[in-house]
Amino acid sequence: MFEPTIKDIARLCGVGVSTVSRAINNHPDINPETKEKILRTIEEYGYVPNNSARNLKRSDAKAIAVLVKGMSNLFFANMIEIIEGECKKKHYSMELSYIEADEDEVDMAQRLVKEKRLRGIIFLGGMFAHSEEKLKKLSVPFVFSTAGAIPENISKSLYSNIGVDDRRESRRMVDYLIGLGHRRIAIIVAEAEEGQSIGRLRLEGYYDALRESGIEVNPGLVCHVSQKMIPFSMESGYLAAKKLLAGGEEFTALYAVADTLAIGAERALYEAGLSVPDDVSVSGYDGIELANYITPSLTTVRQPIEKMARETARLLFDIISGKRQHQHIVYEAELLERESAKAVDLRK
Amino acid sequence: MFEPTIKDIARLCGVGVSTVSRAINNHPDINPETKEKILRTIEEYGYVPNNSARNLKRSDAKAIAVLVKGMSNLFFANMIEIIEGECKKKHYSMELSYIEADEDEVDMAQRLVKEKRLRGIIFLGGMFAHSEEKLKKLSVPFVFSTAGAIPENISKSLYSNIGVDDRRESRRMVDYLIGLGHRRIAIIVAEAEEGQSIGRLRLEGYYDALRESGIEVNPGLVCHVSQKMIPFSMESGYLAAKKLLAGGEEFTALYAVADTLAIGAERALYEAGLSVPDDVSVSGYDGIELANYITPSLTTVRQPIEKMARETARLLFDIISGKRQHQHIVYEAELLERESAKAVDLRK
Repeated sequence: MFEPTIKDIARLCGVGVSTVSRAINNHPDINPETKEKILRTIEEYGYVPNNSARNLKRSDAKAIAVLVKGMSNLFFANMIEIIEGECKKKHYSMELSYIEADEDEVDMAQRLVKEKRLRGIIFLGGMFAHSEEKLKKLSVPFVFSTAGAIPENISKSLYSNIGVDDRRESRRMVDYLIGLGHRRIAIIVAEAEEGQSIGRLRLEGYYDALRESGIEVNPGLVCHVSQKMIPFSMESGYLAAKKLLAGGEEFTALYAVADTLAIGAERALYEAGLSVPDDVSVSGYDGIELANYITPSLTTVRQPIEKMARETARLLFDIISGKRQHQHIVYEAELLERESAKAVDLRK
Repeated sequence: MFEPTIKDIARLCGVGVSTVSRAINNHPDINPETKEKILRTIEEYGYVPNNSARNLKRSDAKAIAVLVKGMSNLFFANMIEIIEGECKKKHYSMELSYIEADEDEVDMAQRLVKEKRLRGIIFLGGMFAHSEEKLKKLSVPFVFSTAGAIPENISKSLYSNIGVDDRRESRRMVDYLIGLGHRRIAIIVAEAEEGQSIGRLRLEGYYDALRESGIEVNPGLVCHVSQKMIPFSMESGYLAAKKLLAGGEEFTALYAVADTLAIGAERALYEAGLSVPDDVSVSGYDGIELANYITPSLTTVRQPIEKMARETARLLFDIISGKRQHQHIVYEAELLERESAKAVDLRK
C-alpha cells in the first residue's frame, strides 16, 4: 500500500511542502485553485497529515463508541447526553453511531474496533440474538444498556448488561390499569417480533398481567408498529393508534411500550374526537422529561435514566482499567401516576 | 516519555505476552486476578495496544467532531441523527461532544484537534463572540450550523455558516401574532445576553415587529430564562412562564424562542388555570417533530432541519476534499399555523 508523505503530495501537485501545509491548515494565504488541487490530491492518494510530534500526542487520545439502535427515541437522546458527560470527566471522547433497524450492531462494532483506536463499546437499545462466537470476536470490553435480555446461552463473563426488568415493569403498568378497573386494554408495541427485545419483553409483561387477572387476550387490541417505520417514534405511535381505531375494537385504556409512542397515539385519539383520560386512559413507558410537561401529563413507568446512563459509562471505564469485572445490573423502575390514566367509568 | 510495549507489560506483571493479549482481548480463559493486575498495569503505564498491522488499517479511519452547545434541546437531537447518517455514507465516524453554557467551544475544538485525528468540525448552536485569531488556530475546516450570526470582523473565508435568518424569522412570528390582533405579547428568551446568539437575534426580531407596529415594549413581558438553567430545556420554559405569571403583567399571547421552551411554558399556563389558545395564544420556534403531536399542536417557525443538517455535513466533507470553498447559506423558515394560537378575543 502506497502511503504518501507530505513531500509526495507536494511533488504530485508541483508545489512546495509549505503550500501543502497551508492547504491542509486552511490558511487564507493560498490560491483557491491550488488549494483545491492539493486537497483533491490528498483525498485521491489517501494522505493523512501525520507528523510524529502530532502522533505522540495522539497516542494519549482515548475513545469509546456508543452504538444506538433506536432513531428518534428521546429516551436515548437523554442517555447519550449523560454518557457523554461521563466520558468527558474521564477524558475519553465518544463516537456516536446510529444503527438502522435492519443493521447488525455487532458487525458494526467489529468494523469500528478494527478501524479506530477504541477502548470500549456501549450498545444502547435493541439487542437481539447474537451468537457467543461473534461477541467473542470483539477485542474490547462492551456493555449492553437498556438492550433487553441477552440470550441465556451466552456466557455472562463476556459482557455487562444494565437495564430494568422490562417484562416485570411492563406487567406492573398493566396491573395498575387493571386496578383502575380497565378490562379492555389495548397495547401498542414495536419490535416485538425480535427475540428478547425490549419490545418483546414489554409485550410479555402485558400478557402476564392479563393472564394473572383472568382477562382473555384480544388480538384485535394488540397493535404492532409497522416494521417499515422507525420503531419508537411519535409518528409510529400515531399511525399505530389510527390503525387500532380503524379496527373498531373497543378499549378503555391504551398502553404504549414507549412514551414517544404514547404521545403519538394521544394525537390520534384526539383527532378521533376521544378525550384523554375521560374517554380513554393512556400510559407510556420510559419516563422521558417531556412526559411530565405535556397536558395531560403522561402516566408512565420511569426508568432511572440518569442512574443507568452514569453507571453504564462508569462500569465500562472500570472494566477497561481492570477495576471491575463484568456486571449484570437490574434497576428498579417507578410507576408514575399522572393525569393521563384514571379509573374506568363503569356507567359507560 | 516511556512508551511500554506488550513485552514490557508482560515483564512488569510476570506473565507471558499471550496472557497480556488474552487480558486485553477480554478472553474468558484467564485467571480474573491476573487479568485485573494486567489491566491495572496497562492503565498505569499508559500502554496502548498498538501493533503495526492494526495501525495500517487505522490510518484509513476518518473522523469529524460535532460540538453541540445546547443540552436537552430536541432540535439538536434531530440534527445530530441526520448528520451522523451523512457521516456514515462517507465512511466518517462522528465524535459528539456537548459544550456547557459556560465553556468555550473553540478552545474545546482546539483541544480535540490536537488529540485526535479529526478532519473537520461542526459547531452546532450557540456561537458567541470569538476572535479571528483564535479561529485561525483551528487547523481543520469547520462549519457553524444554526449558531447565530458570526461577528462581521471575522473573515468569511475562514469558516462556513449555515442557518436561517433568526432575526427575520422571529419577527415574522411576532408579526403573525400581531396580525391575529394580539398587542400584549410576552416573550420567553434564553441566552439573549450573549452577542449575536440565536436567542439574542430572536429577541431582536420581537423588538423589530413591535416597533414596526407601533407597540411599545413592556419590559415586564420580556422574560429571560435564568442563566443558571439549561437554556433551551422544557424545565426552563416552565420556570420562566411561572415567573412571568407571578409578575402579574397581562398578556394574550406568549411567544417562546424555542419549541422546548414553549412546551414547558404551556404546562405552567395549564397549572395556572389558563387554557391554550382560548385564554393565551402560544407559539414556538424550531419546528421539532413533537410540536406536531402535542395537543393543541404548536404554532411555530419551522427551520428546515433535515435540509440544514444534511447540507452542514455535506459542505464540511466537500471542503475537506477540496470540492467547495467555504459557504454562507441562509435557509428560509416556514411559519406553521397550528392550534395553539388564534385571533384575540376582543370581547375580553
